[in-house]
Amino acid sequence: MSARPCLVIGSIGLDRVVTPFAQSDNLLGGSASYAAIAASYFAPTRVVSIVGADFPPAFRRKLRRKHGLDLAGLTTDPHGKTFRWSGRYRERFEGRDTVGIRLNAFEKFSPVLPPSWRDTPFVLLGALQPAFQHRVLDQLPCGRQRPFVLADTIDVWIHRTRLDLLRLLPRIDLFALNEEESLLLTGEGNPTRAGRKLRKMGPRIVIIKKGAHGSLLFHPDGYFSLFAYPVTKFVDPTGAGDSYAGALIGYLASVARTDFAAIKKAVAYATATSSLTVESFSVSRLSSAGRAAIDRRYGELAAMTQL
Amino acid sequence: MSARPCLVIGSIGLDRVVTPFAQSDNLLGGSASYAAIAASYFAPTRVVSIVGADFPPAFRRKLRRKHGLDLAGLTTDPHGKTFRWSGRYRERFEGRDTVGIRLNAFEKFSPVLPPSWRDTPFVLLGALQPAFQHRVLDQLPCGRQRPFVLADTIDVWIHRTRLDLLRLLPRIDLFALNEEESLLLTGEGNPTRAGRKLRKMGPRIVIIKKGAHGSLLFHPDGYFSLFAYPVTKFVDPTGAGDSYAGALIGYLASVARTDFAAIKKAVAYATATSSLTVESFSVSRLSSAGRAAIDRRYGELAAMTQL
Repeated sequence: MSARPCLVIGSIGLDRVVTPFAQSDNLLGGSASYAAIAASYFAPTRVVSIVGADFPPAFRRKLRRKHGLDLAGLTTDPHGKTFRWSGRYRERFEGRDTVGIRLNAFEKFSPVLPPSWRDTPFVLLGALQPAFQHRVLDQLPCGRQRPFVLADTIDVWIHRTRLDLLRLLPRIDLFALNEEESLLLTGEGNPTRAGRKLRKMGPRIVIIKKGAHGSLLFHPDGYFSLFAYPVTKFVDPTGAGDSYAGALIGYLASVARTDFAAIKKAVAYATATSSLTVESFSVSRLSSAGRAAIDRRYGELAAMTQL
Repeated sequence: MSARPCLVIGSIGLDRVVTPFAQSDNLLGGSASYAAIAASYFAPTRVVSIVGADFPPAFRRKLRRKHGLDLAGLTTDPHGKTFRWSGRYRERFEGRDTVGIRLNAFEKFSPVLPPSWRDTPFVLLGALQPAFQHRVLDQLPCGRQRPFVLADTIDVWIHRTRLDLLRLLPRIDLFALNEEESLLLTGEGNPTRAGRKLRKMGPRIVIIKKGAHGSLLFHPDGYFSLFAYPVTKFVDPTGAGDSYAGALIGYLASVARTDFAAIKKAVAYATATSSLTVESFSVSRLSSAGRAAIDRRYGELAAMTQL
């Protein structure tokens, strides 16, 4: 089966990150940057996003030339500035606090899919405001042409736009979120119960990401858990979740399947891919690693969990 | 291969436990109670411990009659009281504080192995003072008759008797400890690095237990990780580590093997067994569950980690 294309909608921005060990500024960031680069290792990847006139041409070149991303859905607002995010990770990386968000160009963003992209069979709604995620869904076909839709989110949207997010859940196929977010959304601290509860809230498939501890998959055909890859050079977890989601949708597009076995393999590829992201600030390690490094870690993960 | 016997040395005591949800007093506790019951599901199990004259006969009957434990190594101090431990679990069970220990009978304990037990091929040194663990090792044969020795510990002994514990490590084959303890001992917060460091400190094999997140196995032949069983009825984690260690030594004795494949299976049986322990206070669920419940959970664990 040949690879199908996937579509990634999310932010492209400039980040400032503070970890217990270091800090860095003006980094290429945003959910779509991480997710699309990750997806590009598996399938042709289309990007819907917006940046301001200040977006560095070098970053645009990296996305298009180095990773072959189709940027026909990337709007440049000539009068606006690029989205900015700054965050601070807590001691031992157990949780992240968003310190500041300046939406900038995203304030007037209205995601419009190029007409030829509307039949993209695999869609990732990155961790954007749910209103944007809804607007993309409104442009996708229904019925038998319906794509497979994966949505991600972050704590900010649960706090600020909870109802929009709850309305989104029945409209998607797979919801991926971290353990802290699953607690915020369900009030349930036990991740197994939280996962079951989330499935009742709409999505057929739920993945709860436990950061350095791995991830849990709740699927109609079964339950699956995978330990995180044993990273020893931990630098910055920013973008780990986005890379995870990107690799997930990219892998599914590459095999054009969404059954339990395929989703389990996708979880392992997502785990392998995001383990590279955390080994540097921004997308540097993810971008330089290449597919071979991902495949190597996938093989190691398969071996180290083989009973 | 027929099952070989195993020997468990540890405390038998009366516990008081406070969790975020409930508290309970005068419970059958102590590392040997949990470990020996867990081991008894796999292999003939011998117990070395001490209790006071106040030890309830009903508890003794449970250990001997219900679980078939050989109590020839259990001393009763006619003038002493039984060991007491009280502990408090933090919110979301992420860590435990020992509130009080009264050693009582253990103050004058000097573990003496019945002569016919000295060639027991599989030995678990439960989470006792390292001095006691050393004293047991001193009575075991060297050279080709050397048994396979697994040792466990708890935070208290790392704080109070660190040097004794460090001297123990080169004398054992497998060291099992939790993530917090591995940080205390190695100063290393990354469990992968901590595991490697611990192996350099003596034991050929190291297992780091991450509680509700699962466990990591560091073995000369490879690395293995297993998610915890997805418990949804969490009551009290006391004894989880002891049950884990007991099932581990019991399974290894039952197959009379200690190669990488056997240790991986032992980790899965230990995970399954300890998941039962946390579903009640004291040993009640562990004691009532039976081998069939353990085998069922082992099967589920194997399925839910199958890529």
